[in-house]
This record gives sequence, C-alpha cells and structure tokens, in this order.
Amino acid sequence: MRAPDILIQEVAPRDGLQIEPVFVETAEKVRLVDALSQAGFSRIEVSSFVSPKAVPALADAEDVFGGIRRNPRTMYVALVPNRKGAERAIAAGAGEINFVMSASETHNRANMGMRHEQSLAALSDIVGPAHAAGLSVNATIATAFGCPFEGIQAFTKIRRIVREYLDFGVDGITLADTTGMANPRRVEHLVQDVLKQVPSDKLTLHFHNTRGLGLVNVLAAHEAGAFRFDAALGGLGGCPFAPGASGNVCTEDLVNLCDEIGLDTGLNLTALLQLSATLPQLIGHEVPGQVVKAGRPLDLHPVPEKLRDG
Amino acid sequence: MRAPDILIQEVAPRDGLQIEPVFVETAEKVRLVDALSQAGFSRIEVSSFVSPKAVPALADAEDVFGGIRRNPRTMYVALVPNRKGAERAIAAGAGEINFVMSASETHNRANMGMRHEQSLAALSDIVGPAHAAGLSVNATIATAFGCPFEGIQAFTKIRRIVREYLDFGVDGITLADTTGMANPRRVEHLVQDVLKQVPSDKLTLHFHNTRGLGLVNVLAAHEAGAFRFDAALGGLGGCPFAPGASGNVCTEDLVNLCDEIGLDTGLNLTALLQLSATLPQLIGHEVPGQVVKAGRPLDLHPVPEKLRDG
Repeated sequence: MRAPDILIQEVAPRDGLQIEPVFVETAEKVRLVDALSQAGFSRIEVSSFVSPKAVPALADAEDVFGGIRRNPRTMYVALVPNRKGAERAIAAGAGEINFVMSASETHNRANMGMRHEQSLAALSDIVGPAHAAGLSVNATIATAFGCPFEGIQAFTKIRRIVREYLDFGVDGITLADTTGMANPRRVEHLVQDVLKQVPSDKLTLHFHNTRGLGLVNVLAAHEAGAFRFDAALGGLGGCPFAPGASGNVCTEDLVNLCDEIGLDTGLNLTALLQLSATLPQLIGHEVPGQVVKAGRPLDLHPVPEKLRDG
Repeated sequence: MRAPDILIQEVAPRDGLQIEPVFVETAEKVRLVDALSQAGFSRIEVSSFVSPKAVPALADAEDVFGGIRRNPRTMYVALVPNRKGAERAIAAGAGEINFVMSASETHNRANMGMRHEQSLAALSDIVGPAHAAGLSVNATIATAFGCPFEGIQAFTKIRRIVREYLDFGVDGITLADTTGMANPRRVEHLVQDVLKQVPSDKLTLHFHNTRGLGLVNVLAAHEAGAFRFDAALGGLGGCPFAPGASGNVCTEDLVNLCDEIGLDTGLNLTALLQLSATLPQLIGHEVPGQVVKAGRPLDLHPVPEKLRDG
C-alpha cells in the first residue's frame, strides 16, 4: 500500500473531548474511537491518564481502553504526564504513550503542576518501563510556537528540549501549538530547524485553529518537510484562554484540502463527514468544522426549477 | 507613504449585511461605513443598487450613500448588476461601480436573472455613463473558482470573460469565489493565468471561508502575484447553499496573519478588533472571526496567582 502524502492522526477523543463541559458517556467514547479506527486512522489519541480531578471529562480512560475493539492497523495512544500515568497506560493496553511537557516553564507549571526538571525526570522514569512493555513513547513539546504567559519560545530552547527528548530514547516528537499562536513563517522556520534533529517520519505537528490559521500552518509545515499532523474530527477542542474560538485543526476540513490539492491522506472524506455529523448530538453543540456544514466543493446543487427551460 | 504589501478592501457593509435576516438600521450602516473609512480602508463596498425585493437588507442603499461622511482617501463602491443600478449609483455619489456577472451561466441566471449576453450588454451600457460621471468601474467574475450548479469553470471561459471585461474598458477586475469552492492549487494557477491579462494593481481576489480555506487561498494568490483582496470585518457574509458555514475572509483575521508574517496592510489590528467586537450587537449573533475571540497572539495572560512564588 502506498504511503499517504500526509499522515493525519486523530486526537478528537482526547484533545477534543477533554475540554467539553458535559461528560460524554464511556460507551459513546468507545463508539467514537471504534468508528475512527474503522475510518482508517493509523493513530488515534484515545484518552489521558491524568488526575480525574484535573480532567474529569476523561476520568474513564481505563474503561475506554478496555471497551474499544482493536484494529491491528491502528496505534492507540494515551496522553501521560508522569510515571503513574504511564503505569496506568501500560496496564490499560495503550500502544503508545504521548508524554507532554510545555516549552514554557510557566505553562508547564500551570498545566501539569511541574517544573521542567520534574517533567524530564518523569519522562526518564517512563521510557524504560514503556519500552519494556512493548509501548512506544512520543514526547510532545507543548506551547512550542508560543505560550499565553511567556510569549514566543526561543528556537534554542525548543532545540534543547528536542535533544533531551531524543537522549531519553523517545520514538517520536510532537511540536504542539497548544493555544494557536503559530504563524506560517515561524512554522516554516521551526520545522526546518527541528528536521535537522528529527527525521520527518518521527515528527508530528499539532496545530490549533484558535486564530484561524490551522490549515495555513499545516500547509507551511508540509512545505517545510513535515508530513505527520494531528487533527480532530469536527475541529473539536479548544483553549481555556479563548472562549468561543476554534479548537484543533479540523480533520475533515484538512482531508478536503488535501483531496482538493492532490495530496493523498488515505482517508475517505465522505465517511468522515458522516461521522462528524454525529458530533453535535454527542457533545450538545455545533462544531467548528466547515465542510460538514458546506458539503464537499463538488457536491453540486440541483439547478433551480425556474431555470430548467432549455 | 509606502504602499502596503497586501491591500485589503472591506466588503462587510455589502457582502456581509446582504445575507443577514434582520434589517440593520440605516444609521447603523452609516456608522459602520464611517468607522471603516476612519480605520483606513482605501476601498469599501458600501451597498448594492439592486432590486429591494431581491436584497431587502440593502434596500436603503441611497440613504446609506447619502449619510456617510466621505473620507477623501477612501473609494466608496456600489455593487451594480445593470444600467438602472448604475444610474442609481451615479446619482448616489458612489466612487466606483462594481459590476457582477457569474462565470457560470446557470448561476448568473439564478443570481441576477440574466444570461451572459444580457449581463454583458448591461456592462456595455454602464461603462460609458459611469466614466462620464467620473466613476471607475470594476467588473467581478462570480463563481470564478466553481459554481454550485455547474461545478468547475474552465480557465478558457474565465480568460474570455476577462478579455470581454477589458474590451469594455473596465478599470479593474475581481475573481470571486462566491460559494467557497476554491483551493490553493487552483488559485495559484488561475491567478498566474489572469495576471497575463490584468496587471496586479487592477486584479482583486475575493474569497469566502465556506470550507475553511479563505486564508489559505489568500496566501496562495499572494504567492502567485496578487495583492488586492476583499475581506469582511468579523468574517460576515455567507452562502445560501451552506447554512452555518463561514462567510467572507475575515478582515481582522487576515490582518493578524499579515502582521504575524511581516506583510504590511496599513491597517491597525487593535482598532479593527474593537470595531469587530461591536458586530454581534449589530446583527444579533456571533460572527465567524477568530482573533476577536482569541485576542492577538501576543496579548499575553497574567501568570496564575498560585505560580507567583518566585
């Protein structure tokens, strides 16, 4: 099978649902993950093993992992901030751990309650047991394109964290634009920079559409040599600093863009649109995705009756 | 004064308000247009001289033109489909007539009630009187990137209409993606093609964000050599075929993008955000614009109290 031109990794069950105020029932989460694996995603971020007090929306992580029907072609990922979370992820049968630390120390303390040295110590505790249990480890640099407290994060800092992650033996690295502060120029430069340290098949870009630049940034990163991208069905997700703003890059809008410009994703847009159309009922409100409202560009409309005279 | 890298032309009063179900009072429209001219837009599409039955939201076009305070640096534009509309625009003191015909004959008949030959006859009736009265004439090719009834429009057809427009002596040409069917690859190719016929200072690109690709398409057109773009404050506007989808490219989101990547627009983002924030009260609902909800990328947030320990 030909490898896709762009590899889209689905994060809606984790990064999408974690911010929803209404708890989505475990059975519904399982149905969503199973539908996504059947839709052909090679990597799905299923849930987080964090404190249920911190993220009550994902308090059922073990049950979701226990309920899904495993597709052998899909990697099921759990977000994990520390050793305890890693043990839970291993026990639950996750295929990959996604460790997260923010480039910004202030954001890391606000988000994870840890200083950098504590997070890095946690990572060093995680990689060995995870690998021993057969899991791979991806490590994310959150706020890589800017922090809502500290602002821009220097390339030298990102480069240093990438180096530290690699030295710990991680299998992949994600640069995350956690609060949607990236722009295509900075994306191009940072991706070019990090690709000197990390091969493209191990580098994921994770953008949010908070300021309407999600797809712009994906294209900029792709032109700079990246090809793995996180996205969330319906554009679920959000940012506590931007009420009402868009969430993650919308999976089906990205697939539509790729279809239109001839980049293969290996995903079927029609199936994704049908699945996305079920989200408003699941979470109780409209989603930011556009193509699910507008239809595919070439889904033509019937000619108005009055004009059918010849 | 240095010319901007990207010239953003504001269309919210016309293309934004025309689809709103609630009639915006004339005095409010005048206030909006005046605020936009004070914000520094060199070209504002103010209203349409069409049948009030066809577009009741803009039935007060004469009164709006009569009420605004003219900024000598601003070109005040009226959309016009035919000779009668042109006479009204001249009488109302418009600085420019924007004539519209769809590349798709089906769309032109559905939207304007005219075949191509009728629209072109109307244009030939308009240019002379408009020029004689001191107005310039811009001619728009609607559905240039696709028609919801006919689908893709051939480059040869667009090229022929551009030629016809130029032969009639128009002063500028707009390629409009009326229902948001454009993609960056087609944009690049069509802009390169049309720039062989029309110099870049006479070519405007008008994109809608119906499928989330508005800013992507602006960047693609800019890279292909275009620099004049229509946009609407708040991303107002919409498409009758896509209920709930986004409208025009959002002015302030585009200005933010340009600011972030170092393209000068000559516009002040802070002032635009303040103005955009008044729109929901004006039209009675939220607007699609993202930056007005999320703030500028480097509008930082205070460090949480609990972390201020040193």
